[in-house]
Parts: sequence; C-alpha cells; structure tokens
Amino acid sequence: MRTIVWNEKQKSVDIIDQNSLPVEFRTISLFSYPDVIRAIKHMTVRGAPAIGVTGVYGMALAALDSKETDLLALKVQLKQVSLEIGNARPTAVNLWNMLNHSLAVIDEFDGEVEELKIKLLTLAHKLADEDVETNMRLSRFGAELINDGDHIVHHCNTGALATVDYGTALGVIRMAHEQGKKIHVYVDETRPRLQGARLTAWELKQYGIPYDIITDSSSGHLMRMGLVNKVFFGADRVAMNGDVANKIGSYMLALAAVDNKLPVYSVFPLSTVDKGIATGDEIEIEQRDAHEVLDISLKGEIVVPRGASALNYAFDVTPHRLLTGLVTEYGVLYPPFIESLGNIIG
Amino acid sequence: MRTIVWNEKQKSVDIIDQNSLPVEFRTISLFSYPDVIRAIKHMTVRGAPAIGVTGVYGMALAALDSKETDLLALKVQLKQVSLEIGNARPTAVNLWNMLNHSLAVIDEFDGEVEELKIKLLTLAHKLADEDVETNMRLSRFGAELINDGDHIVHHCNTGALATVDYGTALGVIRMAHEQGKKIHVYVDETRPRLQGARLTAWELKQYGIPYDIITDSSSGHLMRMGLVNKVFFGADRVAMNGDVANKIGSYMLALAAVDNKLPVYSVFPLSTVDKGIATGDEIEIEQRDAHEVLDISLKGEIVVPRGASALNYAFDVTPHRLLTGLVTEYGVLYPPFIESLGNIIG
Repeated sequence: MRTIVWNEKQKSVDIIDQNSLPVEFRTISLFSYPDVIRAIKHMTVRGAPAIGVTGVYGMALAALDSKETDLLALKVQLKQVSLEIGNARPTAVNLWNMLNHSLAVIDEFDGEVEELKIKLLTLAHKLADEDVETNMRLSRFGAELINDGDHIVHHCNTGALATVDYGTALGVIRMAHEQGKKIHVYVDETRPRLQGARLTAWELKQYGIPYDIITDSSSGHLMRMGLVNKVFFGADRVAMNGDVANKIGSYMLALAAVDNKLPVYSVFPLSTVDKGIATGDEIEIEQRDAHEVLDISLKGEIVVPRGASALNYAFDVTPHRLLTGLVTEYGVLYPPFIESLGNIIG
Repeated sequence: MRTIVWNEKQKSVDIIDQNSLPVEFRTISLFSYPDVIRAIKHMTVRGAPAIGVTGVYGMALAALDSKETDLLALKVQLKQVSLEIGNARPTAVNLWNMLNHSLAVIDEFDGEVEELKIKLLTLAHKLADEDVETNMRLSRFGAELINDGDHIVHHCNTGALATVDYGTALGVIRMAHEQGKKIHVYVDETRPRLQGARLTAWELKQYGIPYDIITDSSSGHLMRMGLVNKVFFGADRVAMNGDVANKIGSYMLALAAVDNKLPVYSVFPLSTVDKGIATGDEIEIEQRDAHEVLDISLKGEIVVPRGASALNYAFDVTPHRLLTGLVTEYGVLYPPFIESLGNIIG
C-alpha cells in the first residue's frame, strides 16, 4: 500500500482518499498543482511526511503544466507556486523542507525548460522513495524500544497513510509486530477528525495488530490502572530544543505518561525538524474550522445545539522536558535534545 | 427549570430526558421503580446529585406500588428494591448516600403501612428541595473564587440538568455570572457521550454566558497559550483523602492545569463523599458499552471501521495532590483534605 503514486499514463499523482476511509477505499488523481493544494487543505492527503511528498509532486505538476518557454519566467512562476503550496497548511514543516529541495533544483538549474520539468518529476520520485526508506530505518530503531507484551498508547495516525508508506510512530509499532513481538495498542480516537478511530484502527486491522479505540481523555486513567507501558506519537514540526508540535492532545497525553513514570517517544524523519526555530513557542499552530468540532453525531443524531460556538486548534506543542526520546532515521536521540539534535542537524 | 418533579396527579416522577437534548426538550414520566432504574442506566437522568434524588423517588414509587399490607414484609421488599436501584450505576455514591436516608426512615418506622409510603414520598420531596438549596450555597462559596474576566475550563455537565436544579460546578459559574462578573467558559465536549457539547453548551446558552466548545484534548494547549485562568468540574465520588472520581478526562485536565500553574476546583455536595473509603484507588470505575465510543459520525457519515474494538471507562480518579480546593456547601476546603474533609464528615 503506497499512499502516493505517480501515474505516468495520465500524468497525475494518485493518492488514497483519507476522508473516505474506512468506509470506502478509493484513490483520487491530482492533475494539477491547484488539485494538490485542495487535497492538502481538505486533508484528502494528511500526515506531515505525506503532505511533504505530495507538495513536491505539486511542483512537478506545475512545471509540466506550464506554458512558459523561457527558463527565467518558468523559475519565477514555480517559486510563486511553491509559496502557494507551502502555505496550504501552516504547522507541518516537512512541506517546506521538501519544497526547498525542489527550489534548490530550480535555483541551480541552467538548461532547457523541458529538462527542468523532468528533473522536478524525478526529484519527486526520489523523495517519495526516500521517505519509505527513512521510515523503515527509523522504525527499526524505534522497534528496539518495544518489548514483547507491551501495551502502547498511540495518538492520531502516523502509519502508511500519513507517509508515502510504512509510517513513523505506527511504523515503529508495525516493525515490532513484524519482529514477532506480541503488542497491543490503545488507539486515541483523536478528535475532532478521528484519524485514530478511522485510519489507525483501519491500518492496525490490516496488519493484524490487536487494539482498542479509546477516547482521547482515557489514556490517563488506563495508565493509573497500570495498563500502559509506553507512548508513541509522531510530529508535525520539531524545534531545535526538541519541543514537538503534533496533533492536538499529544501534550496532555505526554503529561499523563510522565505523571505515571512512563516513557514518551516522538517519532519523525529529520525533515520534520525546523532549523530556523529554537523552541516550540515559535511554531504557528493551525486553527481549523469550528465545524470540524461541531459536526458530530451519535447514532446518527445531531448532538450539538444549533449555532453553538467552538474553537479548533489542530496541534499543540509538547515541551521537550516531557519527552523520553526522539526516534529518527539516525537513531533514537536522548536529552539534552538541544545537543543530540544539534549534532545531527547543526 | 427543575430536572426532577413529582407529578401528584398521575403519581409519577417527571424528569427531563437528557438523551433528547439539545435537539428536543421533553420530559419523561417514571411510574415505577423499574422505570427509575432504566432511566438511570440509560442516562435519561444523569449527574450524581440528580441520580441520587431520582433514586429516592424510586423508593417512594416502589412503596406506593406495593401490595404488601404487612409492615415487615414491606420493609423487606423495599430493602431489596434499594439494592436494585443502588446498583444501577456503580461509581456515583450520591445514589447510595441518598438511598440510605430512605433506608433509615424504613428502619426506624413503626406504624401503618400507608403512613410509611407517605413518609418515603415526603422524604423524596425534602431531599429534592435540599439539593437545590445545597447547590445555591456551594455555588455562592465557589463564585468567590471567580474573578471578573476569568476564562474557565469546565468538564462534562454539572448544571441544573445534573442536579435537581442550579448545579454544582456549573452552578458556581452561573452564580458568578449572576453576580455580574464577565466570564467565558471553555466547554470540554466530553467524549464519549458529549455531555459538554450537548448539555453544558445548551445550559450556558440559556443563561447567556459566552462559551466555546473544545475537544477534550485541547485544554492543555489553551492553557499553554495563556487563555485559561482556572478549572472547575464536579465529582461522582470523593474519597476521605480528597481523591475525586469524576467523568473520564478530569484527571488529564487537572494535570494540564497543574503543569500550567492554574487552580483546579472540584465542586460537589457532601453527599458525594464516601466515608467508607480512604483513597480513590478503592473507587469502582464503571465500564460502559463500547458502542458509546464507536457510534460516532462526522457530517452524518460512519467513521469507525466495522467490528472495531473499543474500551469505555466512564470515570477516572483525580488524585488530591492535583486539586487546589474542594467546593462544598460548607465552604471551600483546602489541603490537606484528609483534615479539612475529615473535620466536616468525620
């Protein structure tokens, strides 16, 4: 199962429609860079690494679609496109880090217009492949942290669906399972969009890993009852001191783990690190439409009063002091992260 | 708006159907004690104080319906009924504390069978009235803790709907509002049954108090952004050391508040205290049907995979070390609670 596939025949990026899962498994073809922006904004594709690679394909599509015959004019146009794509969602930095690869190719290029177009498409293929390799590597490092018999709390979706393939935090869990370790996952449903109940539960079922969906407010109680061994979640942007912006709820989950002396790991490829920021306080947190909170029904019945008001922050920041380790493709980093992360990213 | 009203004409207890709110406001008549048990189990009536008073009316209904003409036989029958009612929901202790008032009347009584029936009904009226008075008193004490301009996080529903009238934690908020303080409430939606999004938002709208619904995992982020001043929630059972069993999610909310140096208050009448237990570890936590977690849709569409598994603990325990104060009808109690609570309950 690869989430993002280039369709050479019709020159489109084909992605799994994550909004229709788990009811229906279907793919959607993105034919142009505005298609890519829409898919990112509406979360048809989601997950920081998946967004990043889709964005790079968006650059390739913009180049292929361009009528410009002058190289300089094409470069100017593509830089404008990169701004539009990069601003589709504000918090995940992978998108910008990936687009910077495209921009570097564009900046350095000095040849025929058609050749640049091919180069950008080739780059997208390469970054897509690298994402899978990176995830396999960090999953192997992370799996060493998991013991036979572990009960793990996992937040949001960080599996194959959130990446090109295999996943990050869920990749770690999957790797431990493939290594023959018997594990069980408590799946945070992850309100408001329920990526846990919808996507993570769906993936775990495919892999044959036992799980229970829980409401996001339940993990603390399970920990107090001694039912949890460790916590794994992903990251949407990491500051140089190890502060982690991730799906809303990660911070409170980490607090509960620390209060119960349980380890908490954030798992991500290094493309999730933002060299330009020192601490999590500088990370812009996306606010999404209140309807994502209000459009909820139980047994098919509307439950929220008409005209009710809601706030919908999509992410929060887990301060580095609450994190036991950061699982990356370079191994597991331990505190002080300002040093262990700085040594690699520097 | 009184949640529980005796209907003398048809000899029924009329309650507001909390499952149909906020879509429809309707009352349901309970004609017999099995009706009362069903209403408690299905959460047609919910909230520890409301359950307690409804249970006492259940005892009166059982007595009125009884065909027993022998006093001893009636007493034996009613004791059996009290066990059935008392076990309808396991965590809230108000139910048992209230039923014990009925049992005391039954034990002491030595007269005509018909007179005992009247006594039990009169007791129910008295306890219902007392609940409202108690809530007004504790709300006045609690309102002193609220400043003009405060932003308050509130969990679950603890308003008029959770009591006979006025409420506990929400009563405190309402009292501050009636005193002219400008306040704003962040309403935890309170998964899985959404008592916050459904009932608390509905009540706040009636009272004209500004609010925003948030997902349960959001409060930590709001606190880190400096948007919250204090936290108020209710209680379903309180141990003698001040540990508080309350709606699932209260523990993680309290953790977030403490991490951000914000005060956390649990608000309850003393009928919520369980003299028989020393710490929260002894409190039985109700597990409810997994369907309450899984029966969720977004924009009317099913979102959870078919056959998915879920865990559904209805309550958690907030350790006393996380609580700033306990708001009761005897005033605000401060740590060490084992002393301040012991002095009153002893």
